[in-house]
Amino acid sequence: MLEQLQSIVEGTPGAEGAVLMGFDGIAVQGYAREGSDPSYDIESVAMELSLRLIELRSAAESLELGDLQDITLKAERGTVLVRVLSDEYFVAVILSDAAHFGKGRWKLRQGAEQLRSELE
Amino acid sequence: MLEQLQSIVEGTPGAEGAVLMGFDGIAVQGYAREGSDPSYDIESVAMELSLRLIELRSAAESLELGDLQDITLKAERGTVLVRVLSDEYFVAVILSDAAHFGKGRWKLRQGAEQLRSELE
Repeated sequence: MLEQLQSIVEGTPGAEGAVLMGFDGIAVQGYAREGSDPSYDIESVAMELSLRLIELRSAAESLELGDLQDITLKAERGTVLVRVLSDEYFVAVILSDAAHFGKGRWKLRQGAEQLRSELE
Repeated sequence: MLEQLQSIVEGTPGAEGAVLMGFDGIAVQGYAREGSDPSYDIESVAMELSLRLIELRSAAESLELGDLQDITLKAERGTVLVRVLSDEYFVAVILSDAAHFGKGRWKLRQGAEQLRSELE
């Protein structure tokens, strides 16, 4: 699990950290890039997001868009990529530089399958 | 304004519609592709999202990520692209097919500047 998160972060230029978290806001496993800027605290970000993700998920369902799969939030000083793993868990990655966010999304999708199987 | 929304939708394969909306959930202008699937009702989607976007925006601010700029939501049966124009307005585009979402994001960014200036 740690190896998967590490591979996502180290394989994505600009990624500062990743966390596997429950929608209840409790982190299962986190990984921060060595020497990463401590102002990018992915656990706080993911915790703050978890409740909002539940709401977005139910909004998507009620709008008949089906299950929410990916969320990308781009802000002035950071980009957050979220991949929903199951009804209970999601992975979030934080990037200080969004230039390679496509690479991050790809690494995240790759790692998601593995993480999902480890959660079962 | 209508022309900008039309250009975003018609220039993005898979886009069904776009709407310029206030964060209060009131639509300023909408555009649906002719013959688009009525199950992709971008006004309802954007209205449903507006309150959640306010929450995400304040979350991003409190996490010191700065102003929220772009949000992408990918669900099973549709992808929603959001671009924040100002403290009061955003544009949302709905795609039935996410294959060209990068093109949509680019068209949306292009159109956003023009829409912003028209709002002033």
